[in-house]
Amino acid sequence: MTVSLVGAGPGDPGLVTVRGLELVRGCDVLVYDRLVADELVEEAPADALRVAREPLSQETINELLVAYGRAGLEVVRLKGGDPFVFGRGGEEALALAEAGVPFEVVPGVSSLAAVPAAAGIPLTHRGLSSRVTVLAGHDATLDYRRLAETPGTLVVFMGLGRLDEIARGLVSNGKDPQTPAAVIASGTLPGQQIVTAPLAHVAEAAAGLESPALVVVGEVVSLQPVLRSAAAIPAIDRASGTLAASSPAR
Amino acid sequence: MTVSLVGAGPGDPGLVTVRGLELVRGCDVLVYDRLVADELVEEAPADALRVAREPLSQETINELLVAYGRAGLEVVRLKGGDPFVFGRGGEEALALAEAGVPFEVVPGVSSLAAVPAAAGIPLTHRGLSSRVTVLAGHDATLDYRRLAETPGTLVVFMGLGRLDEIARGLVSNGKDPQTPAAVIASGTLPGQQIVTAPLAHVAEAAAGLESPALVVVGEVVSLQPVLRSAAAIPAIDRASGTLAASSPAR
Repeated sequence: MTVSLVGAGPGDPGLVTVRGLELVRGCDVLVYDRLVADELVEEAPADALRVAREPLSQETINELLVAYGRAGLEVVRLKGGDPFVFGRGGEEALALAEAGVPFEVVPGVSSLAAVPAAAGIPLTHRGLSSRVTVLAGHDATLDYRRLAETPGTLVVFMGLGRLDEIARGLVSNGKDPQTPAAVIASGTLPGQQIVTAPLAHVAEAAAGLESPALVVVGEVVSLQPVLRSAAAIPAIDRASGTLAASSPAR
Repeated sequence: MTVSLVGAGPGDPGLVTVRGLELVRGCDVLVYDRLVADELVEEAPADALRVAREPLSQETINELLVAYGRAGLEVVRLKGGDPFVFGRGGEEALALAEAGVPFEVVPGVSSLAAVPAAAGIPLTHRGLSSRVTVLAGHDATLDYRRLAETPGTLVVFMGLGRLDEIARGLVSNGKDPQTPAAVIASGTLPGQQIVTAPLAHVAEAAAGLESPALVVVGEVVSLQPVLRSAAAIPAIDRASGTLAASSPAR
């Protein structure tokens, strides 16, 4: 194998997969997103080439993956969350496919469910929600009338900057203004912040939170106070989730 | 911590999280779903009590988790996929919360994105899909008219048994009968089977597949032949993903 597109999980380094960590530990080149935990970047071999994604364009990243892959190097493209859920992993995979470079996709824990879970919110729950709608806050084609009618749980990636517009759009198209809503910033990380409020007031309540943040709208959010307060420790105990605790002998 | 609700991932044992595997290796009691890989069940300590979920009712499972938790045992509830995506993890968490038993939720890789990814299908892709709708095939309230109008990717959990009805319902309400569709059975496992066909013919094409299966409908499925054939090895190489390869020294 030459290039592996690996999901790093939602933030907590303990939520990387066993297979993903193994690949990081054996790579020649690590290309990593800004939101990937430092602990994971440090797991690459000392002599591995480390490439931060952020200063580069998507096209440059694609070209680098193809070039390193053609050179026969073991390349790990470590992406926040899951590579194929708003991760543009498909674009990188397509570039590799078109260049004839063999690649592997190693799915990761997506923020989609993990971030609400760590905050005490299940996406589906018998009697409350049996459907999930997932969209990106920067989606230019949001059809609020249809979204307001859609039952179940709504999850918005990258929705903080446009939260006021989204909440107003839903309410003005008939969504109950009392629908429970949550904004979770830095989910699964020690700095995690959670704000819950009725939909009509959630944008105001979330003022001051910073990206990355996930927005959840739906009756499942009503479980949050119960599920959250019952856990004796944070839903994800990062201290005991450090990689050191389960590192293979080297 | 007493009870941990841990996502085992979509099937391939290498897709468990580092934190989840660590908890399994340290547990006193392991309560596991039928679809959890044997390799993961074997990772529990030799003297741990192993409880198979399937012969028991959900109520009994809830009671067992509460009882073992109250006894101060380290209990791992290992669930297929992610505990909070059609996993009824919320019900178990609620039972623990109501009983005052401390618990932790460790999210897993959900089949939602991982199974399509392993088959060469990204759920979102620039220009093809920026929205995902997730539902369960046994949902009694499917509103085909609205679903047929919804843009983006549709993912149906447990939809194989009702695939013919779902496909007909979508097409008869205006969904393009040529919309690419896929059924993935035993996703991420060595016995994985993938069938793709236009929506109007997908039920017929998938005859003979067995559960567990995930249904994906949308333009992203059109990427499957390219992304799938370019990978020199299966998207997830189970042989090198075995836990033995990255086991901590014990």
